Amino acid sequence: MTYEMTNVQCINILTNLLGFLDKAAAYADHKKFDFEVLMQSRLAPDQFPLARQIQIACDTAKLGAFRLTGKEAPSHADTEKTLPEIRQRIESTVNYLKTLSAKDYEGFASRKITQPRWEGKYLMGDDYMIHHLIPNFYFHITTAYAILRHNGVDLGKGDFLGTLPFKK
Amino acid sequence: MTYEMTNVQCINILTNLLGFLDKAAAYADHKKFDFEVLMQSRLAPDQFPLARQIQIACDTAKLGAFRLTGKEAPSHADTEKTLPEIRQRIESTVNYLKTLSAKDYEGFASRKITQPRWEGKYLMGDDYMIHHLIPNFYFHITTAYAILRHNGVDLGKGDFLGTLPFKK
Repeated sequence: MTYEMTNVQCINILTNLLGFLDKAAAYADHKKFDFEVLMQSRLAPDQFPLARQIQIACDTAKLGAFRLTGKEAPSHADTEKTLPEIRQRIESTVNYLKTLSAKDYEGFASRKITQPRWEGKYLMGDDYMIHHLIPNFYFHITTAYAILRHNGVDLGKGDFLGTLPFKK
Repeated sequence: MTYEMTNVQCINILTNLLGFLDKAAAYADHKKFDFEVLMQSRLAPDQFPLARQIQIACDTAKLGAFRLTGKEAPSHADTEKTLPEIRQRIESTVNYLKTLSAKDYEGFASRKITQPRWEGKYLMGDDYMIHHLIPNFYFHITTAYAILRHNGVDLGKGDFLGTLPFKK
């Protein structure tokens, strides 16, 4: 279930994020302003702008997968300023996630996850997934959505959730 | 893990949401405006305001737990307009979630989850949790956060994530 939640579903949501950007680009084109304006837009002066929200969402998914599986992830320089560059960042993250299988996640719950700013403390893999990876991922995706929504891009809940795996 | 993710962690995040409201109330008091202004604030004219975002976040957690466990949940009339009323809504949701145990979630993955607007289609319990409950819950909590942040309430990531279950 962790593979489905942190890999398959993160791929889904990052793909939906590409859809947000398609709508944003069409909107910028229609209103005749540079897409780069949106990349630097934010909801509060001390909040990260759209570009950084997307970078962090990608890193949350990528580093989450790396930490839960130990499988080397690509590094990114956080220099994206244009639509093609930020699309490429998202696609690179998706491509990395797609190299992993459910088997790679085996034993994730008992991994000890840490990072320098936690000063020696750690989270168990399952706690990390539930209390850090998933909340952070959706936080930054939703904030990206909110910045675009606030700037007039015609997004709705369907763009966020994407296609659900219905049965009948 | 589903109990931890959709019950324990939803209680954590709803408790953090109460913290957002404490900061928002102190800010309204300091700036001498009515808290009710924030309850009707939104980021776009065709977006639900703060009060509705919180109602939906609560319902997502509550109905999610009901659908995954079959345990009767309290009903709410969506009439909250004041700070005490919206706090009460959140607290009532938390109190319901606290009545459930990990055992109540056993077999959740093979439950068939549906609602009238899905017109006969359904999601399996695990798909519902991963692709609907969790994304929707964080979407509405983050949107509530974003509305308050945009209006000047001094919130940060720590308010959103709350206390992490670190070990050392």
